[in-house]
Amino acid sequence: AAPAGRRDMAAWARAVRGLLLDVSGVLYDSGGDGGVPIAGSAEAVRRIKASGLKLRFCTNETQATREKFVKKLQGMGFDISVSEVTAPAPAACRILKERSLRPHLLVHNDLVPEFAEIDKSNPNCVVIGDAAENFTYANLNEAFRVLIGMEKPVLISLGRGRYYKETDGLKLDVGAYMKALEYACDVEAEVVGKPSKMFFESALAEMGVPPQQAIMIGDDIVNDVGGAQQCGMRALQVRTGKYRPCDENHPHVKPDAYVSNLAEAVDIILQQL
Amino acid sequence: AAPAGRRDMAAWARAVRGLLLDVSGVLYDSGGDGGVPIAGSAEAVRRIKASGLKLRFCTNETQATREKFVKKLQGMGFDISVSEVTAPAPAACRILKERSLRPHLLVHNDLVPEFAEIDKSNPNCVVIGDAAENFTYANLNEAFRVLIGMEKPVLISLGRGRYYKETDGLKLDVGAYMKALEYACDVEAEVVGKPSKMFFESALAEMGVPPQQAIMIGDDIVNDVGGAQQCGMRALQVRTGKYRPCDENHPHVKPDAYVSNLAEAVDIILQQL
Repeated sequence: AAPAGRRDMAAWARAVRGLLLDVSGVLYDSGGDGGVPIAGSAEAVRRIKASGLKLRFCTNETQATREKFVKKLQGMGFDISVSEVTAPAPAACRILKERSLRPHLLVHNDLVPEFAEIDKSNPNCVVIGDAAENFTYANLNEAFRVLIGMEKPVLISLGRGRYYKETDGLKLDVGAYMKALEYACDVEAEVVGKPSKMFFESALAEMGVPPQQAIMIGDDIVNDVGGAQQCGMRALQVRTGKYRPCDENHPHVKPDAYVSNLAEAVDIILQQL
Repeated sequence: AAPAGRRDMAAWARAVRGLLLDVSGVLYDSGGDGGVPIAGSAEAVRRIKASGLKLRFCTNETQATREKFVKKLQGMGFDISVSEVTAPAPAACRILKERSLRPHLLVHNDLVPEFAEIDKSNPNCVVIGDAAENFTYANLNEAFRVLIGMEKPVLISLGRGRYYKETDGLKLDVGAYMKALEYACDVEAEVVGKPSKMFFESALAEMGVPPQQAIMIGDDIVNDVGGAQQCGMRALQVRTGKYRPCDENHPHVKPDAYVSNLAEAVDIILQQL
């Protein structure tokens, strides 16, 4: 007999018209050499596309432009294009343009080209991403001085992750540095990226599917599963990537079902169609 | 006619038996070349000592050992000795010994000798101070990994300041980095230093004066004035150092009186004796 979550899933998966896939930890595991694909995921993406379901990749990746990121995934055998990716940097660019904001950037060098068309003179906000090696004492002080010099500081954060794992160990993610600047300037950051509702909504709009007919598949209990559910979607947690058994006891978030990996999720969903 | 706060002060200052003085911003202004004394402050310290009042210097300074710090002040003409200084690092050492904690240190190089007698092997806590140039991406990741690797992370922070001013501009203080680690590890730091009640209490104990008979004199509305008042002391804010006019509209903290500088505070207090 299938576990309870799975029997329910067979029922609600029938209504599905679109899938949102997290990338790191679902399609591949990141690491020093660019990472390795997760077994069965490339084939699973092909099967989704063949099924006629709408598909969107929804990532908080901010260490590279979408072009570079997509090229890496194509090299691993994934059928993916830039136009299918929802990522924080382009979403932030839309916000900057709408509100006439000129950012001081504290981001990874490889992300800077995403902001090529944005006026960065005489900054009136700070945009922080996972800057990695660019999180130096000098760069943090500089971003802080720009913020504290504003009458009403505006801090935009590309995600709010706590930390992530690379081949050489755990690394502090953008959320930790966001908190440092929030505290120093007594300001609350605006988060662009998962788990922000607006971010999921723009991914759904790009697919043209309402939340009730979409499923999010991710490895992050808070940013993927919790964020998508807040938006009215069903959400599956894969037991790959950063998944840890203790996630299953999370005090606030419960996935609609667990799956071993993306391949198994796609098996179950496609059986219902 | 004296302002209202001053008339009251004349009354309650009669009961005073001991003074706690903040150092940076009260005795001197810090800066690139070691800083400059504030006019009248060296003479004011001598007058306090001649009056028979008990005196204690209560600082959150963690960029140097007390020895080095005191030597700098003596060089500016202050009558001060190491045994008269209450500072976070020695207070932290007492806590580490009492609780058999072995720290991983993320502090300024010049503070390390304060921890000379502490066992730092196989760390079971992290002590963070104003590490300045030592707040590198690598060092922050290392402190984070030590914390996240513990079953129950213990983070001890030497103060919780947001930022401070140096001759070359504003700098993020230890509190900002404390917040980053707190968020990443989902832990609350134990703060040693002002405004911690325990820290003021140990300064009072060292003077042998109860809080009702002590006055704190400082330039920081939250860490000096608010912290001392929480402890049952009266507190004066000087209009030197990091004092800003907007401090006088602080939503939670109101000093018992304002004074132009330390010299004026000592004038008024000694007149009542």
